[in-house]
Amino acid sequence: MGSVSDREPWQVIAQRKQAERGRKIPAEWRLPTSLLPTQDVEDVFNFPQTSGFFTPRELELTGVDASKVVARIAAGEWTSEEVTRAICKRAAVAQQLVNCLTEICFNEAIARAKELDRRLKEDGRVVGPLHGLPISLKDQFNIPGLDSTLGYVSRVGQPAASPSTLVQILHDAGAVVYVKTNVPATLMMGETVNNVFGRSLNPHNRTLTPGGSSGGESALISLGGSYLGVGTDGGSIRHPCSFTGLYGLRPSQGRVSYQNVQNTFVGQEAVRSSAGPMCRSPDDIRLFMSSILAEKPWRLDPYCLPIAWREEEEVLPHQLCFGIASHDGFVSATPPLVRAIEIVKQKLLDAGHRVIEYIPHEMQQSRVLITKMWAADGGEEFQRDTDLSGEPLHPDLEAWLGHSANAPKPSVSDMWRVQNQRTMLAQKWSERWENTQSQSGTGRPIDGLIMPSLPSPAVKHDSSYPSHYGTLSPLLDLTTGSFPVTRVDLEKDVLPTDRPLLSERDGLVKDFYGGPTNHKNAPVGLAVIGRRLEEEKVTAMLKILSKIVGDDAKGA
Amino acid sequence: MGSVSDREPWQVIAQRKQAERGRKIPAEWRLPTSLLPTQDVEDVFNFPQTSGFFTPRELELTGVDASKVVARIAAGEWTSEEVTRAICKRAAVAQQLVNCLTEICFNEAIARAKELDRRLKEDGRVVGPLHGLPISLKDQFNIPGLDSTLGYVSRVGQPAASPSTLVQILHDAGAVVYVKTNVPATLMMGETVNNVFGRSLNPHNRTLTPGGSSGGESALISLGGSYLGVGTDGGSIRHPCSFTGLYGLRPSQGRVSYQNVQNTFVGQEAVRSSAGPMCRSPDDIRLFMSSILAEKPWRLDPYCLPIAWREEEEVLPHQLCFGIASHDGFVSATPPLVRAIEIVKQKLLDAGHRVIEYIPHEMQQSRVLITKMWAADGGEEFQRDTDLSGEPLHPDLEAWLGHSANAPKPSVSDMWRVQNQRTMLAQKWSERWENTQSQSGTGRPIDGLIMPSLPSPAVKHDSSYPSHYGTLSPLLDLTTGSFPVTRVDLEKDVLPTDRPLLSERDGLVKDFYGGPTNHKNAPVGLAVIGRRLEEEKVTAMLKILSKIVGDDAKGA
Repeated sequence: MGSVSDREPWQVIAQRKQAERGRKIPAEWRLPTSLLPTQDVEDVFNFPQTSGFFTPRELELTGVDASKVVARIAAGEWTSEEVTRAICKRAAVAQQLVNCLTEICFNEAIARAKELDRRLKEDGRVVGPLHGLPISLKDQFNIPGLDSTLGYVSRVGQPAASPSTLVQILHDAGAVVYVKTNVPATLMMGETVNNVFGRSLNPHNRTLTPGGSSGGESALISLGGSYLGVGTDGGSIRHPCSFTGLYGLRPSQGRVSYQNVQNTFVGQEAVRSSAGPMCRSPDDIRLFMSSILAEKPWRLDPYCLPIAWREEEEVLPHQLCFGIASHDGFVSATPPLVRAIEIVKQKLLDAGHRVIEYIPHEMQQSRVLITKMWAADGGEEFQRDTDLSGEPLHPDLEAWLGHSANAPKPSVSDMWRVQNQRTMLAQKWSERWENTQSQSGTGRPIDGLIMPSLPSPAVKHDSSYPSHYGTLSPLLDLTTGSFPVTRVDLEKDVLPTDRPLLSERDGLVKDFYGGPTNHKNAPVGLAVIGRRLEEEKVTAMLKILSKIVGDDAKGA
Repeated sequence: MGSVSDREPWQVIAQRKQAERGRKIPAEWRLPTSLLPTQDVEDVFNFPQTSGFFTPRELELTGVDASKVVARIAAGEWTSEEVTRAICKRAAVAQQLVNCLTEICFNEAIARAKELDRRLKEDGRVVGPLHGLPISLKDQFNIPGLDSTLGYVSRVGQPAASPSTLVQILHDAGAVVYVKTNVPATLMMGETVNNVFGRSLNPHNRTLTPGGSSGGESALISLGGSYLGVGTDGGSIRHPCSFTGLYGLRPSQGRVSYQNVQNTFVGQEAVRSSAGPMCRSPDDIRLFMSSILAEKPWRLDPYCLPIAWREEEEVLPHQLCFGIASHDGFVSATPPLVRAIEIVKQKLLDAGHRVIEYIPHEMQQSRVLITKMWAADGGEEFQRDTDLSGEPLHPDLEAWLGHSANAPKPSVSDMWRVQNQRTMLAQKWSERWENTQSQSGTGRPIDGLIMPSLPSPAVKHDSSYPSHYGTLSPLLDLTTGSFPVTRVDLEKDVLPTDRPLLSERDGLVKDFYGGPTNHKNAPVGLAVIGRRLEEEKVTAMLKILSKIVGDDAKGA
């Protein structure tokens, strides 16, 4: 290893890496200057349909959800090859519009698709439930021969030797891997930007972030450049989904393999991130989850739980009762989110379900605890991995855990205390939930808690939002679904003048929101929080919510 | 709080606590001096049968396993009251012979038993699958109004306010709680001695330890003073079971609630202890596990997994293949354990099963990692909790983590590295296990690994054994069962003169064993290690092992 002065400047490494990525887009899929929207064009969401760059057939092939794709391939109506070619082209265009990809393997994907077509023809049956389906993966997942840089310059040029166990499982189930997607360096930001690949943009409004850390996925999927992608979540599936109008699932630990996946805070286990699907429909969540569980991942990954997809848990009672919250006692949701809550509440009531208010006061302690858990190395890892290349940390991260932050390094005993506080909080949350049995009117505790994942819709770049509601689910390992509800409305979503503030922070959040023009055109999504290991039930509730919200979400 | 000089001497507190315990034994259950074996009597195992202190009816009531007790109570053949009175008397005698109890609540137990008898008579049905069964609990479990001192003087006189969730679940299932049992202070020793309650003895040979940390349980159950007890295990179910001739199960995390249970290293989560049954038969393991899971503990404890008792997993293939190991590549088992392995191996082959050698070389790294995890606070907790009373730490613990040890305090980053090494080890272990598919001859990986939990049978008091095989199961969360096989044989178990040593430590273990006379009359048990969350399968394998070992174990 050379001295620091011998070192190649990090900018040079990043430029070369970006150029390599660019060369992996075939010439015929590169947008001509005449078609490429100029930087000031904010909304590119309908570009695929309106630009004329795609054939009607390509739009048909890429315009449905994953469940329809696998059904049509299995029925011999579509081939995996034509599907894969079309989605690769649409992903290539998405990359040019919103900069959402890190690694590209179109050629390998098309070869694999041909092979799957051949096998289906020869054997007369699919190799697995995902036969022929192209799936995108967040950059963390290892694919042999491709980098998993997590946006760190120092990790460029270190291709993975073996696939992540989940990648192997998806392959065995018949999926086709074709791209990896962008993340914030360190993964620990709500917006997707790094020194290797740059910044990902929100297709609905390119001045807004698609969220993070699975923001490359959300940008790609919402532009139709993927049917279904795999994200990971310590907040990072739910936030991008709600910023871009997608469905998503944050499963509890142990349902989806996280083995041999690159991650930040390696070895940190006090709070764990969880891998899960981001997609266009609840059906696709079910498709993904049931398909990978059919492969019995616990044989391959000792941290996977031996729990098959439980169809009996998908059968829900006729009448459900949801908890509803538009604040956590500390920070209120802003007008578009409050309106989304009201829409869902009314539609649930209209459909014969019940709702009760359930304010998650525990959210505030969960923020404090989770931040201590993530910061427990005092930033050692962030500093080491950026020092290796000399690249700077993003200013938000530098202020939190960079050299200049001089963050405290708690002792192991300190962290034991924090972990014990989390265990107490989990018990308290569980007891309170169980006790709603007496108020729900169904004889059961509430079936789910519907609330925003964040107080505001998608925000401008570099505007580090002051608060979010994302910490309780990872801290207590609660199964949580995301679903789209509506879109920011310039008239309906102005701030009321008279809302009392819950806290000083609530004032910051209100000012940060400002008004609907700051979030023009942004989708508005919500979360439904279940208990631990309720993936089947939460997916079934997402189906119900999708159905009743219906047209409002389509407006999104 | 007074100054140190004002403080009541810890010896006074301990004496008072012991006197209180003594007063809870009714006069009629106190052994007259004429009957009480003198200290030099080593073997008291048959005292209940031979002393004449028990009526034939009492011996009948206390001489069966828990499964028979619940069946007879449910059938109206026995009452819970007569069962409870008999087992309380036998526990009282066990206390006088081997000092195995910490807390006693005979009166409350008998009142509860009467109430259960009344309800059965009135309702015509049992309240739950454990209706009327007395169950003993390791001192860690909270029972309202009783201390959970863990053998620390500073915790005397701090009765629990609310029951451990498991205690509540057992109650709901119909169990009767009547005693808590002794532990080493700190729980972190293989022998059961502390400054509050003193030392527990092995009924088979009172110069030997009944093991630890669930050594009060093993002493009590093996003397017939309990049908079934709940221990906890980071080694502490398997070791005492193998030292006293019992069956036991170390379940994987999340099957048995550990909520609101007193523990050492509070908040330490890198490696977790697990609660499980210690008992007289594999049927009783099944009874315990299926009964508590029928109560759906995941409603009450968010760390319990929503996995009911899976009867389908109890149905085993006709032919099984076991891995067999009499060493771990570093330390060899001593002659009685090697002989036990040979007995089991031959009987498995005779019964048509298969065996292959499977040496757990990973054991050595697991020892290193688990020790780092336990010691990660540098002894802060041990020192604090003994300083509070001024009592000394046991010399072994003092040397490890006392003030004088000056143990290092690793950083949080250090521990993240250790945790990551454990995850890698888990993956390696799982892959290797999975790969036995090609050697097993059954088309499946090995079904279980049969090996000793420790290289030697029960050891003399204060002789801190130099090595054991107990770390892999807790570190990798492997479901592990214990079963008795034979008993030390003064002729067969002499050391061979020519065995080559595997390591320097192997020499220490060999010298430590010395010869069979050092372990006279000790039972010899083995472990069967499964994969993670295979409680049903391991229990079913214990049934098979119990059946084929049969008479040999009865000789134990």
